Amino acid sequence: MHAYRTHNCAALRKANVGDIVRLSGWVHRKRDHGGVLFIDMRDHFGMTQIVVDEDSPALETLDRLRTESVVTIDGEVKARSDATVNPNLPTGDIEVYARVVSVQSAAAELPMPVAGEQEYPEDIRLKYRFLDLRRETMHRNIILRSQVIASLRQKMVEQGFTEFQTPILTASSPEGARDFLVPSRLHAGKFYALPQAPQMFKQMMMVAGFDRYFQIAPCFRDEDLRADRSLEFYQLDFEMSFVTQEDVFQALEPVLAGTFAEFANGRSVTPAGAFPRIPYKEAMLKYGSDKPDLRNPLIIADVTSHFEKSGFGLFEKIVGSGGVVRTIPAPKTADKSRKFFDDMNSWARNEGYAGLGYVTRKGGEFGGPIAKNHGPEKMAALYEELGLGNDDGLFFAAGKETEAVKLAGAARIRVGQELDLIEQNCFKFCWIVDFPMFEYDEDQKKIDFSHNPFSMPQGEMDALENQDPLDILAWQYDIVCNGYELSSGAIRNHRPDIMYKAFEIAGYGKEDVDSNFGGMIEAFKLGAPPHGGSAPGIDRIVMLLADEPNIREVIAFPMNQKGEDLMMGAPSVASPQQLRELHIRTIEPPKVSGAEKTRTDQIGD
Amino acid sequence: MHAYRTHNCAALRKANVGDIVRLSGWVHRKRDHGGVLFIDMRDHFGMTQIVVDEDSPALETLDRLRTESVVTIDGEVKARSDATVNPNLPTGDIEVYARVVSVQSAAAELPMPVAGEQEYPEDIRLKYRFLDLRRETMHRNIILRSQVIASLRQKMVEQGFTEFQTPILTASSPEGARDFLVPSRLHAGKFYALPQAPQMFKQMMMVAGFDRYFQIAPCFRDEDLRADRSLEFYQLDFEMSFVTQEDVFQALEPVLAGTFAEFANGRSVTPAGAFPRIPYKEAMLKYGSDKPDLRNPLIIADVTSHFEKSGFGLFEKIVGSGGVVRTIPAPKTADKSRKFFDDMNSWARNEGYAGLGYVTRKGGEFGGPIAKNHGPEKMAALYEELGLGNDDGLFFAAGKETEAVKLAGAARIRVGQELDLIEQNCFKFCWIVDFPMFEYDEDQKKIDFSHNPFSMPQGEMDALENQDPLDILAWQYDIVCNGYELSSGAIRNHRPDIMYKAFEIAGYGKEDVDSNFGGMIEAFKLGAPPHGGSAPGIDRIVMLLADEPNIREVIAFPMNQKGEDLMMGAPSVASPQQLRELHIRTIEPPKVSGAEKTRTDQIGD
Repeated sequence: MHAYRTHNCAALRKANVGDIVRLSGWVHRKRDHGGVLFIDMRDHFGMTQIVVDEDSPALETLDRLRTESVVTIDGEVKARSDATVNPNLPTGDIEVYARVVSVQSAAAELPMPVAGEQEYPEDIRLKYRFLDLRRETMHRNIILRSQVIASLRQKMVEQGFTEFQTPILTASSPEGARDFLVPSRLHAGKFYALPQAPQMFKQMMMVAGFDRYFQIAPCFRDEDLRADRSLEFYQLDFEMSFVTQEDVFQALEPVLAGTFAEFANGRSVTPAGAFPRIPYKEAMLKYGSDKPDLRNPLIIADVTSHFEKSGFGLFEKIVGSGGVVRTIPAPKTADKSRKFFDDMNSWARNEGYAGLGYVTRKGGEFGGPIAKNHGPEKMAALYEELGLGNDDGLFFAAGKETEAVKLAGAARIRVGQELDLIEQNCFKFCWIVDFPMFEYDEDQKKIDFSHNPFSMPQGEMDALENQDPLDILAWQYDIVCNGYELSSGAIRNHRPDIMYKAFEIAGYGKEDVDSNFGGMIEAFKLGAPPHGGSAPGIDRIVMLLADEPNIREVIAFPMNQKGEDLMMGAPSVASPQQLRELHIRTIEPPKVSGAEKTRTDQIGD
Repeated sequence: MHAYRTHNCAALRKANVGDIVRLSGWVHRKRDHGGVLFIDMRDHFGMTQIVVDEDSPALETLDRLRTESVVTIDGEVKARSDATVNPNLPTGDIEVYARVVSVQSAAAELPMPVAGEQEYPEDIRLKYRFLDLRRETMHRNIILRSQVIASLRQKMVEQGFTEFQTPILTASSPEGARDFLVPSRLHAGKFYALPQAPQMFKQMMMVAGFDRYFQIAPCFRDEDLRADRSLEFYQLDFEMSFVTQEDVFQALEPVLAGTFAEFANGRSVTPAGAFPRIPYKEAMLKYGSDKPDLRNPLIIADVTSHFEKSGFGLFEKIVGSGGVVRTIPAPKTADKSRKFFDDMNSWARNEGYAGLGYVTRKGGEFGGPIAKNHGPEKMAALYEELGLGNDDGLFFAAGKETEAVKLAGAARIRVGQELDLIEQNCFKFCWIVDFPMFEYDEDQKKIDFSHNPFSMPQGEMDALENQDPLDILAWQYDIVCNGYELSSGAIRNHRPDIMYKAFEIAGYGKEDVDSNFGGMIEAFKLGAPPHGGSAPGIDRIVMLLADEPNIREVIAFPMNQKGEDLMMGAPSVASPQQLRELHIRTIEPPKVSGAEKTRTDQIGD
């Protein structure tokens, strides 16, 4: 017989009745029923009920042990009585009568419970993560994460991608977020940096001719932490050669749709090949956002022209001075009180907007000052144009376009939520495409890149030379799911001549390009294929599938929101010798509170 | 037609003759045959011959372009004449007559050639790694690496393992090699460390109940660089719960044997289930090493007892003072000159040993001073015992046991090589088992741990309490292939009581254990399963399979031997603002040479 187990704790069935078995696992729960002890024994795989009756030689030991102790039990499998069969448990038809017990690890008093999963302060959960991870939800989340990553990987391989590793000790990048630095021992005064993303390396893989690269890539950004952001995170980093934007979409859609479908658990998923492609401009108009949640059926419309001449003076004035009027429908709100509409307006003011106008409608009858002043006929014409009905209300976001877009987008979300219109149990994907290459920077009074300077402009050199820069679109795209941006991506600009010209339009000389991006330019001068890619965030994907609002719930050993690993005691003070070897010195930190000073850096200290 | 290609450069066959196709790739080679241009066009997948005849509109452009330019070519597939068919090329039956060419990227003059793969200085290769990686061998090595990792991963999953990620920003570990430190911005004066290995995390995964963990884990050690060692490297890190040493072996053997067989390319591989298990003591005796190369058939023997009384005074004296005499056979050396034997002796002296004695034998006749003094009858008896024949020579390593073992081990390798006895085209695996738990430290005159203090002693508490510490073995093992240690591993000591006792024997108090390893002890007190694992080095596995002597040949973007990434320009100087944010200051470095000072930190600078 194996030293620890003949079966795992999810394996035994009715067919095993009469078998002498050996099981190992954790004492999940103990119940004493008048001298007979019932133990739920747990392992990675599941749960088995152990019965320790009065005459069992194992009784004394098991009675004494605390929950979460680890034991090995030899016993006989017996059928449960019909009354005690548990249909919710795979092993619910049987129980094991313990004869012999070996204690593998007697648990001391627990700092937090495992069974029952009651809520517990996060810092305790993180300090004792090895206990927290035994809890059912966390255990399931971490396994889900592994399965999702395995699925993404397999589907990338099916799409012809090969996984490569790129360096983690690398160079500080001139762009983007804040780098983590690593002092070099061999090169005094110099530092490595941890990659914010393997962007440069994946493009070099294309220049090196590897055609289709991917990596489940660890990335590092020294930015302040949020519920959906940690210092280190993973992305499904990929890049392809000799492709158009359409090829990138066709490669990624089966991967995302396939993986989501695999773990959707009854939730619907936009099928591959059917991800809507929404031009940036259209997204900003219809959803007031470049990451629209398509589960929300509400569509924003522009009704500016209706208010060029209107009895409603405020809108006429706004339109007259170049502003816009956007509408957010509030369908089937005939029975909503005035308060519902006024509350929305108050919400908008609280958010810092001038206010959210509205029109009510009950059985065809319009209400509210806008309708009154604009006039019922003109209002009816507007409703006709928008396809709204007799009992639909309408909100108005008016003002300077950028402001109106933001307000309309926020109001669309809020109205959708308030009216309970958000479709549940579905994952709705879309691509946002046709981002503008340039924008006018009001502060600096000059044209600048609007998103990524390294994307290929649509129309390439010809567009740069012959079009109004503000009309030029980029081969750049975002992939969005349920209102969350999973990643941006682009067909890259691999042509030094086009790169120099694009930077020139944004006001940067050849020297600027060469001194900041010389490495990339130099590589592109030695034979570079057209290429493009993207890098969907894996933690975000797992959060969506696990339906968890916090990234720390889908990472095995996360830091807390202050960037501390409470279990391992990181960060911690380095020894003088370590600092000497690294040729650095710490600067006297500003005074810290006593609490901070006495924080323990290691479990057990 | 697709913008860039209808086929890749390895796809076209005789069946495509007559097709109009579009190919994209690099101009690998150009040959001008009297007005007709032949181009070998290369991509990730292969090579296709392009013919550009005199009247092709593409001729002028293609004639002008340098090799390594990237082009897209439209043309017609034609059959090659029988005389020009190339059976070594998958596309060797056809060639493509170019009609239209689009230049995707015109290459400037190359700093190093791609075609032909002539040797080139490593620093140039690393600075222009994107060119170097286009070369056939490097391209193949990096793809092999990807395939090996994918294979290992798949086989681990087949063995029931699940892949998990553990943190890369973590705590400095009190043991082992030198850590890389990462200054914390949020916690002034404190540092994260990069993991030397996820040892603590994988054990915590077991304590958390995940049963079988693995990870293709990036590891970091700030140690001086060697041909087989880089600052960052990958290991197949794994750990299992409720297992004995035998279970670990049964899980890993199919993974290693399976992956090696998959890429053996005709080379033989020790089959899973048949990896020899060699006790440490036996390995030191028979191979003079704990990482024996079993491709070498020579076996060392101990013949000390033969020389207790011998006419050969030197050996008698050595034996008399507690030393040993070990033999290394030199089979079928009747035709070797005296010089062969004397050269071996000189080699041993050059290596710092006292010398390597020998006996020659030709047709049964012994030669040399040892045989003469020891006497032919006694020598014949010794030969009889060793199973040696009439034409076999014999080398002798005599002295203090530790010294004799080392010399015998080195001589076994050298004799095997000199006599060309090393079996070629095979991968021979073995486990080294039964390492001693403790050893006597001659310097400190005390008992100390001989290898890993955290391994479980065989016999557990009972052994610690009742056996001579120097007789206690550990559940610790190494996996060795062709003389290279791929990894050590162990069944871990998961019992705080046994841990305290083991440290007590080595002279450390409970306080020492608690203050240095408190986190682990604390976790083990809250319910820990018996567990064990190992972590074979992936770079080493790929080196063996690729038959490369240098780790940099199997890494896409390695640092050079000075720890510099010449392509990315790492490490580099940080800005004063970066240092300020991290609360550190660099210490004025010692004066460096001019060459060092002017080293360029970025391509293109």
